[in-house]
Amino acid sequence: MELVEIGQKAKKAATSLNTLSQEKKISGLKAAAQALKSHTDKILHANTSDVDNAKVNGMTDALIDRLRLTEARIEAMAQGLIDIAALEDPVGEVLSMKERPNGLVIGQKRVPMGVIGIIYESRPNVTADAFGLCFKTGNAVILRGGSDAIHSNTAIVDIIREALANTGITEDAIQLVMDTSRETAKQLMCLNKYIDLLIPRGGAGLIKTVVENSTIPVIETGTGNCHVFVDESADFEMALNIIHNAKTQRLGVCNACESLVVHSRIKDAFIPALYEMLKENQVVIRGDEISREICPNIEAATEEDYAAEYLDRIISLRVVDSIEEAIEHINQYNTGHSEAIITKDYNNSMKFLNEIDAAAVYVNASTRFTDGAEFGFGAEIGISTQKLHARGPMGLLALTSTKYIIFGSGQIRP
Amino acid sequence: MELVEIGQKAKKAATSLNTLSQEKKISGLKAAAQALKSHTDKILHANTSDVDNAKVNGMTDALIDRLRLTEARIEAMAQGLIDIAALEDPVGEVLSMKERPNGLVIGQKRVPMGVIGIIYESRPNVTADAFGLCFKTGNAVILRGGSDAIHSNTAIVDIIREALANTGITEDAIQLVMDTSRETAKQLMCLNKYIDLLIPRGGAGLIKTVVENSTIPVIETGTGNCHVFVDESADFEMALNIIHNAKTQRLGVCNACESLVVHSRIKDAFIPALYEMLKENQVVIRGDEISREICPNIEAATEEDYAAEYLDRIISLRVVDSIEEAIEHINQYNTGHSEAIITKDYNNSMKFLNEIDAAAVYVNASTRFTDGAEFGFGAEIGISTQKLHARGPMGLLALTSTKYIIFGSGQIRP
Repeated sequence: MELVEIGQKAKKAATSLNTLSQEKKISGLKAAAQALKSHTDKILHANTSDVDNAKVNGMTDALIDRLRLTEARIEAMAQGLIDIAALEDPVGEVLSMKERPNGLVIGQKRVPMGVIGIIYESRPNVTADAFGLCFKTGNAVILRGGSDAIHSNTAIVDIIREALANTGITEDAIQLVMDTSRETAKQLMCLNKYIDLLIPRGGAGLIKTVVENSTIPVIETGTGNCHVFVDESADFEMALNIIHNAKTQRLGVCNACESLVVHSRIKDAFIPALYEMLKENQVVIRGDEISREICPNIEAATEEDYAAEYLDRIISLRVVDSIEEAIEHINQYNTGHSEAIITKDYNNSMKFLNEIDAAAVYVNASTRFTDGAEFGFGAEIGISTQKLHARGPMGLLALTSTKYIIFGSGQIRP
Repeated sequence: MELVEIGQKAKKAATSLNTLSQEKKISGLKAAAQALKSHTDKILHANTSDVDNAKVNGMTDALIDRLRLTEARIEAMAQGLIDIAALEDPVGEVLSMKERPNGLVIGQKRVPMGVIGIIYESRPNVTADAFGLCFKTGNAVILRGGSDAIHSNTAIVDIIREALANTGITEDAIQLVMDTSRETAKQLMCLNKYIDLLIPRGGAGLIKTVVENSTIPVIETGTGNCHVFVDESADFEMALNIIHNAKTQRLGVCNACESLVVHSRIKDAFIPALYEMLKENQVVIRGDEISREICPNIEAATEEDYAAEYLDRIISLRVVDSIEEAIEHINQYNTGHSEAIITKDYNNSMKFLNEIDAAAVYVNASTRFTDGAEFGFGAEIGISTQKLHARGPMGLLALTSTKYIIFGSGQIRP
């Protein structure tokens, strides 16, 4: 099917979803969840084709694991939709309705975005997740997954479409772009006539391509070069505990800590303890000259190390002489994701919160908390590292827009 | 100066503006206003060069009028900055701070966007306006005006920079791109490393170019094909009054009415009265067959007419058999700006408010009210016709972002 036709169908679906009742949306989500469960075999069968192809194509075991579905994963996917159904529906809320001196009553009503495009890589559970969040907020979604997962994605989308149709809801609430070529992806990025918002989910390369080519408004989700700054007044035990958690609790995620900054006043006492703790956890430090004078086993850091998102058992380390220097270093190298200070000092905690330019700024906590579920949003479509519209973990609200509604009684402008 | 250098200076300025006190921002705005007034002669002299060039280049009188500055216009520009200084400063507000079960306290703090780029056409008063709004919200601004106004813009920017420097504020809070070539404009649109938000202000051509070429997040401001729908229950006098206002009070603005939709049940009584009223105001109607059977002097409308933003004494007219048909017509042809229904019917008013997809939807009032000042925002940087971030008139809030601030006491993620 032509992309333009997909766009037109989505726009039409969005018109009917715009006024779909909250009850009906809940029914649709529950029906989709039930259908995924009752068609587990069909999904597993399709997924086997994808996994077999991946093996032939020499995909790494780690990536194959992301691609693979199991009965438990399909059950989790279905449960995800049921959880989304239970969330409060943000659509329809009217914000700050006020009367103007001329008697006009003006309010801002929360409405669906319209049509949302999602371009994503291999994990097929994103297919159900993204549908659930977009549908709950009254949006039609156009999904463009990777070629690796095309069989799994097709099965999941077909099952959800059938479930919607059986519930009396337009099945074009969810559409999958079957052509997974790069050319088609680029065409999709220029369908601004039909798509209101495009969200890329995947690696840095995918996100860069979308940002550079899209004429549709994009929310950049992102890479995370997250820092922990250990201030001179830090509680060492807390600092080691938080660094251990932020670096090692899960390596391959965007809110994992990749860079450390340590105040020079505590370097002699703290860095050896830090080195030992990380060594025990098989984490290699790449540090500056000062840190290497203290622990000669620390590898020498290059400029690239300070900017790197390793997603691996490596961490960079820089020693600074002041909180000002720490903030300058972090603002230079960070990716606008999550940054933390460990301190007992009130002024320094405030300074760090005020001056660090990132989506989430922490005092005395692990960067790993930057997550929709941890923030209490119930669900997450991604973590925005840009400043427009949504910044940080994006829940249902990020998938809505507003419109002004104005109640008059014949007013004209003088 | 190289664009990259401008970008770097702006980013550096943004870092210091980010923590500039509200008092200091007010001082800077007042100093800039005072400087514009005391250098009126310098600005008028520069403006004369622009106007002389415009005459040589054969610019129309209407456009020369937009370009021309007078003592009164410079006074108004200065007053604009003083008015902005008096507005409530939105930066620093913390929204919905809540404690999570693990004891983390998470809030959303309103912060400056960072660096804002504005690409605009000939009116030089935009220079001071845009600076005022960006500066009040702690942003550095990079201005790229048209070549027509380059002397005026240079004078205004130089005066403001000097006033800021004299107040101890970084003068790079405002920078002007001196090279007004299209190539440089396109390079500017790709400075996403330094610019957080790009706002085009001007005609449809400019906006299209920016949307298609920018890798920076853009807020599309816009063209307005605004409709008034006269429902079967409408009060005729109110309808004529509102249409008169929406069409003729100011012709060349985006919130002027360009298209009428009339319910067929009232066509025989209403259309002749409408025709007479518009004729008296030298407004030509281009209507469908049904309307022309009633008033043969109505010109025949083409498909293009229904989509046109005339900005002139022309209006399109379509007769429909139901509110559903009216909503479908409007949602097909509108540009997402401002739409109005004139009705006495409760259900139809609700249906129109719910189903029309536009930034501002009116019941029984003129579309001309879609404006920052009329909505009570005190000032306006433009009217957004997109759904991301800001929709409708954009006041100071539209120039801010948020960041999550998280107060912990050693929490790690389990």
